[in-house]
Amino acid sequence: MKAPVVLSIDAMSGDHGHETVVDAALLALDAHSSVELILVGDEATLRADLQRRKRAGDPRLRIQHASEVVAMDESPSKALRNKKDSSTRVALNLVKQGQAQAVVSAGNTGALMAIAKFVLKTLPGIDRPAIISAIPSVNGHVHMLDLGANAECSAEQLLQFAVMGSALVTATLGIERPKVALLNIGEEEIKGNEVIKQAAQLLASSPLNYIGFVEGDGVFLRDIDVVVCDGFTGNIALKTGEGVARLIYHFIKEEFTRSLFTKLAAVMAMPALKALGGRMDPRNYNGASLAGLNGIVIKSHGSADAQAFATAIRVAIREVEQAVPQRIVGLMAATLPKTPQLVAQA
Amino acid sequence: MKAPVVLSIDAMSGDHGHETVVDAALLALDAHSSVELILVGDEATLRADLQRRKRAGDPRLRIQHASEVVAMDESPSKALRNKKDSSTRVALNLVKQGQAQAVVSAGNTGALMAIAKFVLKTLPGIDRPAIISAIPSVNGHVHMLDLGANAECSAEQLLQFAVMGSALVTATLGIERPKVALLNIGEEEIKGNEVIKQAAQLLASSPLNYIGFVEGDGVFLRDIDVVVCDGFTGNIALKTGEGVARLIYHFIKEEFTRSLFTKLAAVMAMPALKALGGRMDPRNYNGASLAGLNGIVIKSHGSADAQAFATAIRVAIREVEQAVPQRIVGLMAATLPKTPQLVAQA
Repeated sequence: MKAPVVLSIDAMSGDHGHETVVDAALLALDAHSSVELILVGDEATLRADLQRRKRAGDPRLRIQHASEVVAMDESPSKALRNKKDSSTRVALNLVKQGQAQAVVSAGNTGALMAIAKFVLKTLPGIDRPAIISAIPSVNGHVHMLDLGANAECSAEQLLQFAVMGSALVTATLGIERPKVALLNIGEEEIKGNEVIKQAAQLLASSPLNYIGFVEGDGVFLRDIDVVVCDGFTGNIALKTGEGVARLIYHFIKEEFTRSLFTKLAAVMAMPALKALGGRMDPRNYNGASLAGLNGIVIKSHGSADAQAFATAIRVAIREVEQAVPQRIVGLMAATLPKTPQLVAQA
Repeated sequence: MKAPVVLSIDAMSGDHGHETVVDAALLALDAHSSVELILVGDEATLRADLQRRKRAGDPRLRIQHASEVVAMDESPSKALRNKKDSSTRVALNLVKQGQAQAVVSAGNTGALMAIAKFVLKTLPGIDRPAIISAIPSVNGHVHMLDLGANAECSAEQLLQFAVMGSALVTATLGIERPKVALLNIGEEEIKGNEVIKQAAQLLASSPLNYIGFVEGDGVFLRDIDVVVCDGFTGNIALKTGEGVARLIYHFIKEEFTRSLFTKLAAVMAMPALKALGGRMDPRNYNGASLAGLNGIVIKSHGSADAQAFATAIRVAIREVEQAVPQRIVGLMAATLPKTPQLVAQA
């Protein structure tokens, strides 16, 4: 019998508060029989939540008290300096101490990243962690990083992101040689960013399956597994995509409620529209990884409901089972000696 | 009676070739009685096109011969250096010489920009022209610049873009004090780009109606008139938006053709889906302006059909009637003395 996966859950995180996280934890326990969860947060509050749900005695669930909470709008540096007993920090400490194998949090992204870097440190060869997530594409989905942790990046860091993304996709999806592309603009005359040109050279001489540049539309329409970019561009692209999707839903709703006829049509079209919604629903893509850390940290969207948070827990379980950080270390070691520029710097 | 608007049309430009441009020109002539057009390109070819359409004798239409064509994938610097008699260059020369008041081209964007800068020069106080276009948003539309002409920009250039966008929106839409926002990422801890922070300071002390930062989703969902960003970010955002829109259409098509029931539903839903398509159709937003030049240059999408190209011609007509370059000069003059940093440099 294999050892259980133990996850620490930042139970005080997220816009909807602890009750939503507790509901998500119970959904995950029911769905994954070999998983154990540690709920981190105010003990009395969490115990009451469990008692109301008649799950206080669940043998696969325990509470770890933490007296503080990082606010969603709190400065990450202040949270790191002043809140030594925050639920986020205590949850990360459990991983550091080997009591848990991964953290799931819906808290303040900047604070989670800052505290995680401080507590867990980065993996050998990785300068800075990056945020990676699956997003929907014509082929199902594509993984993109960095989605906002590093506004400016060097070419070497973009190569590291490519390694991190490739290792994660191989580990969690079983794709042997994931297709990696660099996000860039298409116009030839435009002076493409120098960093991106250098990164393209590093990638081309690496053992990764680098397929070249991709433009913004190609992210969603081409057959690519990993899209690499700096955190500024990635964050703009991700949120632009969300904005356009929400705009289209807004238009769909307006068009289908315009007249009695279109309202009837909407009833007919409901199954197709629902299926469409499911394919684009950010809840089905919830759970971004803070890749490059010496430990597994999964960020759930702040607005996640219980079902979405449970999706993020599933992402954490898969990364633990597939030992993603070790895979990153392995692929980094295979990449370094074959990338002359990096060897020169090492 | 007011003087006619005279436009020079780069008739050899675009993916679909001269016939599409000629069709667009005829559509525009029929729709705008006070407009005269100069078709620039191979005289024999264009004359044959007009004869086939029985419009060779149209008094509001003439042909200006140009012996060369800039290829869609040609290097802009080579096109500028070697093709002195290209349809693009000759069309721009007509504006320079005062024979036409604006150019409309569906050609190579980089080459159009390079040749336009060389032939027309930039307006006083403007370092570099930028590409600006309307894109759909929850309030109808929003103008965004730069969409790809300048990969890297200084804070002063972003301020100039804001002036250009404000003046254009005031001129063409009659909005007195357009709301201007800077595209940025939301995470507070992330080291926001230094250039953007400086640009925010410049904008805040300018007489423009600056309302702060906007994230990628807010471009489409908030009440903003002008979104300012560098050309790299703008190009990624624009194409990401196009990609997501196309992905959603792909999903809609798949979902509505899944079964006999959903196909029936699609027939019912067709009017609403068509209206939706119209609201997102890039053809209805065709016609990006190369703002900041000492002359009006409108770029039609390379893949534009005749109807879409005619939309771009309409954009050119409106900019001529509203004297957009003069408006930019005026607003620039009103902005400069009130922006201390710029005065110090002047």
